[in-house]
Amino acid sequence: MAPHDRRSGRLVKAPEHFIDAQGVQAVFGEARKGRRDFVRGAFAAALAATAGSAARAQAHPPPADGGDPNILELPPHSKGLGQPVATQGYGLPSQYEHNVQRRPSPGLTQTRQASVSFAPLQSLFGIVTPSGLHFERHHQGWWDVDPSKHRLMLTGADDKMLRQPMVFTVDEIMRLPSVSRFHFIECGANTGMEWGNVAVPTCQYTHGMLSCSEFTGVPLRLLLEMAGADFKRGRYVLAEGADGSSMTRTIPMELVESGEVLVAYGQNGEMLRPENGYPLRLVVPGVQGVSWVKYLRRIELGDQPYATKDETVHYIDLMPDGQHRQYSSLQECKSVITTPSGGQVLLDKGYYQISGLAWSGRGKVKRVDVSVDGGRNWRTAQLQEPVMSKCLTRFTLDWTWDGKPALVQSRAIDDTGYVQPSYRQLRAVRGTRSIYHNNAIQSWLVQESGEVKNVQLA
Amino acid sequence: MAPHDRRSGRLVKAPEHFIDAQGVQAVFGEARKGRRDFVRGAFAAALAATAGSAARAQAHPPPADGGDPNILELPPHSKGLGQPVATQGYGLPSQYEHNVQRRPSPGLTQTRQASVSFAPLQSLFGIVTPSGLHFERHHQGWWDVDPSKHRLMLTGADDKMLRQPMVFTVDEIMRLPSVSRFHFIECGANTGMEWGNVAVPTCQYTHGMLSCSEFTGVPLRLLLEMAGADFKRGRYVLAEGADGSSMTRTIPMELVESGEVLVAYGQNGEMLRPENGYPLRLVVPGVQGVSWVKYLRRIELGDQPYATKDETVHYIDLMPDGQHRQYSSLQECKSVITTPSGGQVLLDKGYYQISGLAWSGRGKVKRVDVSVDGGRNWRTAQLQEPVMSKCLTRFTLDWTWDGKPALVQSRAIDDTGYVQPSYRQLRAVRGTRSIYHNNAIQSWLVQESGEVKNVQLA
Repeated sequence: MAPHDRRSGRLVKAPEHFIDAQGVQAVFGEARKGRRDFVRGAFAAALAATAGSAARAQAHPPPADGGDPNILELPPHSKGLGQPVATQGYGLPSQYEHNVQRRPSPGLTQTRQASVSFAPLQSLFGIVTPSGLHFERHHQGWWDVDPSKHRLMLTGADDKMLRQPMVFTVDEIMRLPSVSRFHFIECGANTGMEWGNVAVPTCQYTHGMLSCSEFTGVPLRLLLEMAGADFKRGRYVLAEGADGSSMTRTIPMELVESGEVLVAYGQNGEMLRPENGYPLRLVVPGVQGVSWVKYLRRIELGDQPYATKDETVHYIDLMPDGQHRQYSSLQECKSVITTPSGGQVLLDKGYYQISGLAWSGRGKVKRVDVSVDGGRNWRTAQLQEPVMSKCLTRFTLDWTWDGKPALVQSRAIDDTGYVQPSYRQLRAVRGTRSIYHNNAIQSWLVQESGEVKNVQLA
Repeated sequence: MAPHDRRSGRLVKAPEHFIDAQGVQAVFGEARKGRRDFVRGAFAAALAATAGSAARAQAHPPPADGGDPNILELPPHSKGLGQPVATQGYGLPSQYEHNVQRRPSPGLTQTRQASVSFAPLQSLFGIVTPSGLHFERHHQGWWDVDPSKHRLMLTGADDKMLRQPMVFTVDEIMRLPSVSRFHFIECGANTGMEWGNVAVPTCQYTHGMLSCSEFTGVPLRLLLEMAGADFKRGRYVLAEGADGSSMTRTIPMELVESGEVLVAYGQNGEMLRPENGYPLRLVVPGVQGVSWVKYLRRIELGDQPYATKDETVHYIDLMPDGQHRQYSSLQECKSVITTPSGGQVLLDKGYYQISGLAWSGRGKVKRVDVSVDGGRNWRTAQLQEPVMSKCLTRFTLDWTWDGKPALVQSRAIDDTGYVQPSYRQLRAVRGTRSIYHNNAIQSWLVQESGEVKNVQLA
């Protein structure tokens, strides 16, 4: 299907199919021309690799100019015995993927008092973040807490909030009715440096405080019901962590009552990782990561927001009128293109699949539009199934790069109709002094050299 | 909602909600009685843990008989600084989860010529299998293949099958239009030992050659289209791996034409793991794992099945009439309860959440029924969203154990109407000499002691 470029700037219907094979080959073949010798060598190598078992391949003898004759040798793995089973009981990525790792930022705090590492979004596929690459944010360092000694306590702000305060062991939590759900988690400070025109180079650093997992746990509502909670008076819960930061956040009861807030122990099929709150963390779908309290040790039911240090001094938004916006913890609809993105290089013209992630703290992603000309024209991207609520959605769009500068952007729309804003639109409301909750459209400039740069439009 | 036990043996409608909090607490509280002192101690510990930051907790002083006074000490992680960010660029599970690992079977081959390790299903949640715990099956050992030297060749059984044979580098494959989809993979030999009444002790060994991931790759159909394949004459493809086993399997073109068969490089968001075919493997949804050829180096298009050693000598079913059934590669509808399962111990009476996995090589799981009395009565389990085609589906059911022996079973039904058979039903068709493709109902016996045993009903 041919691209649907429109000059009107209006949205177009999503194509039902990907670009077809002829289309891909036309532009892919074009790009290959400059690399013909390399491809020929590759062809010879592949023939050689199959020579042992596939006599039929001899019908296609290697070209006379097949390059290095050594390449005709079968590789060791086609001739010998490999290793029996992965020597560890727990497997690891290939040595060739060593560069795909979460990274701290040289420009941000790396102390035991406060630390962060970013997920390598530019190297990830689909929507699941491998737990070994899940972003980290610690307010007093991370611990590997002994689950047999850990407890979760449910208390009330006064003696009547709960009929019966309770203490659970981790085993007891794990014995209760559980659910598993896919959700994104995004730090409220994600993309924070972009507010100040500090264009960090890669999407690992612009958007990498974002991950997505299948979480398993017990609805907090059930625990409160077991404790005989007064749901009429108790309209807020305070969640408190067991690490040195004593992280405390207020969660409105509407979220708890919906059944979505979980006391979670599972992440992507196994127990939570230590750096992500093992053995218990709160999962608050759609809400910024700091509210997903790690090493969760206490839930208190109260009748008003708690105004703790972590919600009055941090994670607040300084508005143009000089006032701070508090409790703005819901992550609004947002998206980012991960391929092509800052720091990557397009080696030649031709076909590329633009690929990225979209999400909304309010529900499902309904549509994603992509522009390659800085927002003058938009095409509707393909959404990868399944599209789930408060979860990452992978989008893709076929693109033929003509070798000229291109300004690529994505704009997500959620099922409430909310449209991800431009920087101009966002600044008109929020001013220029915010740190948190930046969900503006990201722009990547593909230069004539093929190098991709982070740029900010006025 | 109260359990729906029925004497009729007929199926009942699935409850819309989980058991409610009063129900859980009633049976949970019952079980707790014998542990009161322990819980009191825990309560004191939790109070102590929160003493530093939550003055309000003093409203609930620790009981006078609060046990070991040392437990009132704050744990180190509540008093000190943790580690800044996970020291590895790639994170690992908690030290306390060391026991959750894939395991080879003492009774099966562990040589470099043939090896297997099983996924710890009894310890997993949800549907995603962490890649570090994905089962392994090697026919000549595993390798960490250098992706920069690996090639994929497309050839034809004769010169007219493809207009243009092609060779792709891994980079070239990764530049093509890709899709990401969640699918299960099950070895055709999974549950094979159960045919012979060899009741292996745990579900890791009965069903652990089963995993589920989000796979990312290029539809094989697209590659064949790019090579100008003759889709009328070419009704089968041969997939060949680059490791020493030269694994070769025939795939019918209907599966390829559906767009479901992928040349995959991604698994759970990152590159395939070496032991699972890095850098390229075939993904053949619904079909037994051996057809998901690892280290994929060649696809040949032909007009008839290839009858290679791997499909004529192995992975065939010896039928009662003495003939072998070949090409029986589709994994029929199946399920297994993972909690409670063999080797586990129920410590006391009361509430448990029965939990398990269901899947079908033909499409979606439509319903799962659970029995706790050896199949006399069945209740319909809750299916966890999302329910996806040719993917694991997690099911759960509330259960109150009365302390008497119980025989727990699950029976899955897919959206074609196929019902998972009992051993008696399966043997009536297949006899007793099969090794592969056992999808019979699994039975776990909960003994009065709480110990759970693998048993086979006649």
